[in-house]
Amino acid sequence: MNVKGNAVYGQSGGPTSVINASFCGVVSECRKHRETIGTLYAMRHGIRGLIDDDLSDTDQLSEEQLRLLPYTPGAFCGSVRYRLPGDGNDYQKLLATLKKRNIRFIFLNGGNDSMDTCMKLSAFLQQVHYDCRVIGIPKTIDNDLYGSDHAPGYGSAAKFIAATVQSIACDNECYHTGRVNIVEIMGRDTGWLTASASLAGITGRGPDLIYVPEIPFDMTSFLHDVQEVYNRNHRCLVAVSEGIRDASGAFISTETKTDVFRHVQLGGIGRALEEEVGKRLHLPTRAIELSLLQRCFAPLISERDRKEAACCGRRAVSFALKGITDSMVAIRRRNTPEYRIVYQSVPLQKAANTVSYLPREMMNEKGNYVSEAFLSYALPLIGGVPSLPISDGLYQYAKQ
Amino acid sequence: MNVKGNAVYGQSGGPTSVINASFCGVVSECRKHRETIGTLYAMRHGIRGLIDDDLSDTDQLSEEQLRLLPYTPGAFCGSVRYRLPGDGNDYQKLLATLKKRNIRFIFLNGGNDSMDTCMKLSAFLQQVHYDCRVIGIPKTIDNDLYGSDHAPGYGSAAKFIAATVQSIACDNECYHTGRVNIVEIMGRDTGWLTASASLAGITGRGPDLIYVPEIPFDMTSFLHDVQEVYNRNHRCLVAVSEGIRDASGAFISTETKTDVFRHVQLGGIGRALEEEVGKRLHLPTRAIELSLLQRCFAPLISERDRKEAACCGRRAVSFALKGITDSMVAIRRRNTPEYRIVYQSVPLQKAANTVSYLPREMMNEKGNYVSEAFLSYALPLIGGVPSLPISDGLYQYAKQ
Repeated sequence: MNVKGNAVYGQSGGPTSVINASFCGVVSECRKHRETIGTLYAMRHGIRGLIDDDLSDTDQLSEEQLRLLPYTPGAFCGSVRYRLPGDGNDYQKLLATLKKRNIRFIFLNGGNDSMDTCMKLSAFLQQVHYDCRVIGIPKTIDNDLYGSDHAPGYGSAAKFIAATVQSIACDNECYHTGRVNIVEIMGRDTGWLTASASLAGITGRGPDLIYVPEIPFDMTSFLHDVQEVYNRNHRCLVAVSEGIRDASGAFISTETKTDVFRHVQLGGIGRALEEEVGKRLHLPTRAIELSLLQRCFAPLISERDRKEAACCGRRAVSFALKGITDSMVAIRRRNTPEYRIVYQSVPLQKAANTVSYLPREMMNEKGNYVSEAFLSYALPLIGGVPSLPISDGLYQYAKQ
Repeated sequence: MNVKGNAVYGQSGGPTSVINASFCGVVSECRKHRETIGTLYAMRHGIRGLIDDDLSDTDQLSEEQLRLLPYTPGAFCGSVRYRLPGDGNDYQKLLATLKKRNIRFIFLNGGNDSMDTCMKLSAFLQQVHYDCRVIGIPKTIDNDLYGSDHAPGYGSAAKFIAATVQSIACDNECYHTGRVNIVEIMGRDTGWLTASASLAGITGRGPDLIYVPEIPFDMTSFLHDVQEVYNRNHRCLVAVSEGIRDASGAFISTETKTDVFRHVQLGGIGRALEEEVGKRLHLPTRAIELSLLQRCFAPLISERDRKEAACCGRRAVSFALKGITDSMVAIRRRNTPEYRIVYQSVPLQKAANTVSYLPREMMNEKGNYVSEAFLSYALPLIGGVPSLPISDGLYQYAKQ
């Protein structure tokens, strides 16, 4: 059953430093198969672009844009946080776009929520017998996508976090009596990002303590841990997930907002712990929030992550051309001593809305640092130094 | 009058990404002049090391340490914030150290306060007729050292700030309706660091508004500026100094602590403005504090800054050998189209305790962005990409 027609690509959810590398992968692979895929469109602001027929033609991308895009952070096509169906007409409207443009291939690049959108889209198109391949391309710095060994975006975020924590550790060595530094790291439900701070420890300058949402947080134990480290080293570096919660499941963080998916948006855990350490232990303490930089600091991308992101984009196209649909591109790690991976497809049902948690065995017994298993898992993901386009000390990114 | 003897080097004040490059410069130049300078000692924790005779012998540095040190952030010798004389015996104690070790050359690496220490030390040694050269080596990310075109440390901090603001601008382009991002940048009294955010604007992705301590901050004008930008672009990026103050000179920031020099330590201006924008303009707003990373994020050092830092260290030694004392190494920029500098010595009295403010002509007329004059001044300082030692995606820094 050979489908011919046009294709559309969209970006969804939070931006990362390498999602545009995936976009470039889709573009380059589609261009290799002009006989089957005529035009590749890009949705403006994800699924909203498809609903509103707000698409751009990727043949309009300049050579310069294509050269810089693989190194450009953000979401070049525009992203969106929008859950299908927003209103009852969404499906009919996007079907009209697909028909009008003769689109037979859909590629959606995102995380768990985007895979949910992908799955609903696929189910609807099957239901109305509109012949179309739907493939999800993984992307999330959170690394919580089920079905893939890791997600593009994670390696680069992990590298930034490790380098940051290492720099802070250097800084904190300067004075005779150091501070308690509390580094607040993204991660509402999972500790993958916070755990990556431990990679700095391989250099001998990493966090002393790591707390993740998967392990119930106990304030008394925390204060005890901090005091113990401080007594020994005259300083202490804590990496903590924004989403840590107590044994009852309640967030420790004091500030909460809610996003459009009714996910809780957290912040302020660093400051909350800073206050507690100051008040109870009377130690000089400073909270540092890595904030948005975790997902957008392109100067520190991992070259392996960038290459894998590009490859996920290319594979999405080649899978679709082989007749695969209703699936997400996933990375499977080979059980070999050196790092080797293969790309495969997994059903969207598996990937969508299932959260991949940091396994308990990747943390130590006390639950306040990672285990060797995590280091072996994460270290290969931050490898490689990209040749970033830079001029006069300023990084060059693609522009609209 | 040829002095022979040993030398001592010390680091003082806040660490930077390139102060250890200056240290290496001092080490390499001293080693070239063994006939005059026998041993170069390093003070542990700055002037405290001299008072307490807590010195290390730099001949003990390994090849590996010397290879990595020029790229290692922090203050490898240990820093201190201590103002002479802490107690009446300080001078007698450090004189005892100097005599015991036959130290005839003193190099102190730091900012305004360190130059004050240098000056007092020099005056005391002259008073007691202890023959010794005292040379200050400039270092401050704040760039507020009087007598030098710019200070080593500033270029690297400026490059980090520009790259960060550019990344945040990319991130904020993703959604149809963007945020007001307020980036809080160090700078208690001067706007040099905050102004450097504007370098990102050369790439087309920079801040929309810049507020510095030198120009009185007016909340009504600020809110008006933000609303105007937001109406035009659906997003707004603000770079603001922690030390902005109102027309009466009172800090806008709500959080203040005091350091040992009775300088006010600020923080929280980003959050204060975030709250104001949210409450008054009802716009989605996010404050981002760059915090310690501005002074310690070695992966983004400016190669020019690193080289100049090393050169300041070497020149300190060669100036002392020429008989210069009671002076600081300073950078003078030549009035040429291409960037050219010369190193010179300036009397410590000029450098110590005088603050170099961002000149008014480096800001625009409205006082809410830089002028071309600033861009011409700052752009050369962030140039060059260093060959950072990196292995498995992890930066390699010197260890004790």
